[in-house]
Amino acid sequence: MTEGLAQVLEAWRGVVGAEHVLTDPAALSSAQSATFATSSRVPAVIRPGSREEVRACVRVANEHRSPIYPVSTGKNWGYGSRVPPADGCVLMEMRRMNRITDYDEKLAYVTVEPGVTFRQLYEFLREKGSNLMVSVTGSTPDSSPVGNALERGAGSGPYADRAAHVCGFEVVLPTGDMVHTGFGRFPGATAAKLHRWGVGPHLDGLFAQSNLGIVTGMTMWLAPMPDYFQSCFFGIDDGSRLVDLMDALQTLQLRGLFRAGLTVRNDFNVPVRMQQYPWEALDGATPMPPRLLERMRKGFWRDAWWSSLWIGWAELYHASREQALAERKLIEAALGDRVDRLVFVDEEDVTFSRWDAPDRAEAAAGYFDPGRDDEEIQGAPSEDNLRGVYWRKRTAVPDAMDPDRDRCGVIFCAPTVPYDGRHIVAALEIIKDSLARHGFEPILNIGCISGRAVQVTATITYDRDIEGEDGRALRCHDEMLRTLSGAGYVPYRLGIRSVGLLPEPVDDSDRLLDTLKKTLDPNNILAPGRYGLGVKTQVKE
Amino acid sequence: MTEGLAQVLEAWRGVVGAEHVLTDPAALSSAQSATFATSSRVPAVIRPGSREEVRACVRVANEHRSPIYPVSTGKNWGYGSRVPPADGCVLMEMRRMNRITDYDEKLAYVTVEPGVTFRQLYEFLREKGSNLMVSVTGSTPDSSPVGNALERGAGSGPYADRAAHVCGFEVVLPTGDMVHTGFGRFPGATAAKLHRWGVGPHLDGLFAQSNLGIVTGMTMWLAPMPDYFQSCFFGIDDGSRLVDLMDALQTLQLRGLFRAGLTVRNDFNVPVRMQQYPWEALDGATPMPPRLLERMRKGFWRDAWWSSLWIGWAELYHASREQALAERKLIEAALGDRVDRLVFVDEEDVTFSRWDAPDRAEAAAGYFDPGRDDEEIQGAPSEDNLRGVYWRKRTAVPDAMDPDRDRCGVIFCAPTVPYDGRHIVAALEIIKDSLARHGFEPILNIGCISGRAVQVTATITYDRDIEGEDGRALRCHDEMLRTLSGAGYVPYRLGIRSVGLLPEPVDDSDRLLDTLKKTLDPNNILAPGRYGLGVKTQVKE
Repeated sequence: MTEGLAQVLEAWRGVVGAEHVLTDPAALSSAQSATFATSSRVPAVIRPGSREEVRACVRVANEHRSPIYPVSTGKNWGYGSRVPPADGCVLMEMRRMNRITDYDEKLAYVTVEPGVTFRQLYEFLREKGSNLMVSVTGSTPDSSPVGNALERGAGSGPYADRAAHVCGFEVVLPTGDMVHTGFGRFPGATAAKLHRWGVGPHLDGLFAQSNLGIVTGMTMWLAPMPDYFQSCFFGIDDGSRLVDLMDALQTLQLRGLFRAGLTVRNDFNVPVRMQQYPWEALDGATPMPPRLLERMRKGFWRDAWWSSLWIGWAELYHASREQALAERKLIEAALGDRVDRLVFVDEEDVTFSRWDAPDRAEAAAGYFDPGRDDEEIQGAPSEDNLRGVYWRKRTAVPDAMDPDRDRCGVIFCAPTVPYDGRHIVAALEIIKDSLARHGFEPILNIGCISGRAVQVTATITYDRDIEGEDGRALRCHDEMLRTLSGAGYVPYRLGIRSVGLLPEPVDDSDRLLDTLKKTLDPNNILAPGRYGLGVKTQVKE
Repeated sequence: MTEGLAQVLEAWRGVVGAEHVLTDPAALSSAQSATFATSSRVPAVIRPGSREEVRACVRVANEHRSPIYPVSTGKNWGYGSRVPPADGCVLMEMRRMNRITDYDEKLAYVTVEPGVTFRQLYEFLREKGSNLMVSVTGSTPDSSPVGNALERGAGSGPYADRAAHVCGFEVVLPTGDMVHTGFGRFPGATAAKLHRWGVGPHLDGLFAQSNLGIVTGMTMWLAPMPDYFQSCFFGIDDGSRLVDLMDALQTLQLRGLFRAGLTVRNDFNVPVRMQQYPWEALDGATPMPPRLLERMRKGFWRDAWWSSLWIGWAELYHASREQALAERKLIEAALGDRVDRLVFVDEEDVTFSRWDAPDRAEAAAGYFDPGRDDEEIQGAPSEDNLRGVYWRKRTAVPDAMDPDRDRCGVIFCAPTVPYDGRHIVAALEIIKDSLARHGFEPILNIGCISGRAVQVTATITYDRDIEGEDGRALRCHDEMLRTLSGAGYVPYRLGIRSVGLLPEPVDDSDRLLDTLKKTLDPNNILAPGRYGLGVKTQVKE
């Protein structure tokens, strides 16, 4: 430990207490671990317990020119977990700041600190007997709604575009100054948690996917429970129908159907959640041949639902059963001829609007569970998706999953693509080609987040314990991201090492971002390099 | 003309051509006229014709330290029209930049320059045979969608929260640098016009209600025409029912009904649009006594629709008739007992869900015109609302209305209020009290823009040709805004002279805004004082 580090740690101990400044090897090793290879060293972990402690820590960081990397709960799996993009940053963990500081049932919001988790928020609302639901992430229930919203992660339910349903950020600036976005800067402003824009320039966007401030509080709007809820599933067997299907879905979504968005996944998405890689059957070879997948899913699912090549899934939230059935009719009319299977599941029934093998429909009904979705409707977060990151592991999926610890390899690449069948297929082709050439299964997800754009997510999953796999996966990711961005499909979200893979801007944006970073963080102490800000600054000096 | 001014004008002439640099008294006098008293002098008007000319003009402004005040079409009536908040700014009018530079029917957007008007955009779409509609302003069809979106004006239709339905700003910074917000900074980014957030910090908000850049292009999303359209009208006679009514509306809106928002207006809103002040009958006295209003409306409307004390109006956009009727049923159930009148009007019928005098319902049907709304559905902008600004004039409403020229007095005060009946009534009481004490009619509008907040708009309207009225109106406005803000009801939008009336922030926001302004506009040449930025900077130096 250098003398400088010892001094700054001492100063931080004075702020947060010695027990919240960690330097033991286990803590540091854990802080340096992500779901892919990283090289940044973390000299210490500090855990402030309040907004004022955050401010004091930031002032110390400035005095000592010691950079810090704040994370909420640090579950940014697949994008870098808790690991800072730059070497030598002290990790600032906010998980002690886990208070739900405001809740209003009528006006439907909560105000939370960054250490609050989805699980905690869900349980809080159920305990209150609330009629409101959280838009949850597909990742672990132990992740942070604040962290996820700042990364613009997509959620579930009517407020799936989470970044559009939060407001009133409380922010500690890199200088230690404090600001509130929106109306919150005015004393007693009654609409501070109810209206995003405030008056004057709107600054929320400055603090998302950036390093221009530490968000220590945020208001999240909550949707009321639907009066009627149904799930819609559909599938196609022939990949050549995908263009037409996506175009039909776009039209529906633009017309205001599927208000909670929808998801279309390829066949490989299913086994990775249900089982692990058939290492023995394949004698250790990778990737898994598509033919085996076909055999496997047909055997497992007996030609039922999940035998589709592409599977669509939408949750539909309604104000009444009548409204729901009217909308169902519109979906049936638009999709009927474009899919091989179309099923609606509500509280009581499974309705087969279209089923390629009518004689097997009854058997298939067993796969759908009416009423099972109560928790999902209420926004209960689930760990089900997470199981997929253990797909290539040779060890069993543990009860308490922790992909960082368990050396699960996971890298996401998530380009934003026009909601146009041909564009979607073009982006998928780039992804499939990259994955195939580097020996990974195509695990693909099309997140239909609006009537105009989709987020295609490619998951590279592997076993970090197999030598050479880390390098292979990163090469695959880097090539894929470069090719996609070069073709105009730019990711909506970046991992800690991805910003350098984006094309050069056509305008003066880099200079503007550099100027903002230098002005707001003159000592470059806040998460240097995050989303590119602060590292380019250093390079140019 | 000073030598300095002569030099900078010469430089601008070199950029935009002599015919686009105006210094004649008529042009300057017009540029200095708003719908209330202002004192800023405008030494010249410049009219760039392209983005590159804007950049060159900005560079000239920096070289000569000559501040400019950019407006789109300059119809910011009631908030300051084209008049700069600071003295001595050259007006930069963008109306020559009136190109619609992109249009996509499938992905439902247009890209426009700031000089494009609502009328032009509407006609463009009709000419294309488009199935898309513009979210229009209630003001003149000659106003600018870009200008209005940057002011966060509310619109009509499903995309009424216009600021949430625009993206991809092309911005000339105060230094002359050029940036694109969202994905637009990357070459060939296919989702630049389809997804707001881009990757990294999201900067749209910096350029709205501010003076940190000149927006020279913007993408606006357009909603598809509804497959079924209906209007919903309702009214109450007893003011004590307003709290309960607003609460019921809030619940409906939060549940996803009234997706295009709705409006509740008081009785005085009707005569100001239909006739002018009864100067003769009142022997020149103001304000008009409520009793006269009551007599007038009862005589005129024969106890029919508009005799209500509060009148609600919602446009409902649906994906099918069946969906529409299902939603109508929910609205009927929630409002039936809370209103005296409730009427739905669709293409074919007028349906009286509730009517206090059933025997007169048939006569009342004449006031509703099924099918009349075709143009409204399509987003045709209308001048109907504008007539209200001539209410207090002694001259007749001209065919070509121009409130600046005609010395119509109009000042808006528009606080943001929680969507909670008691808060709404409390804000209304402050407004009514201010208006009454200063001798103005209470012309009130409750814009229900989301399930959580409303924008209450008070209109102070008067005749600028009557001596003393300018001063009285401004005193009324200033007192009203101060009282409202002090009670926590902060305006969502400010006139050019209002920023000083806001309370002091509780945090370091002013310092952050000052820092941003100083950094991005080191010579303070761009619209100094707009929304407070740049004037406070000067004051502190």
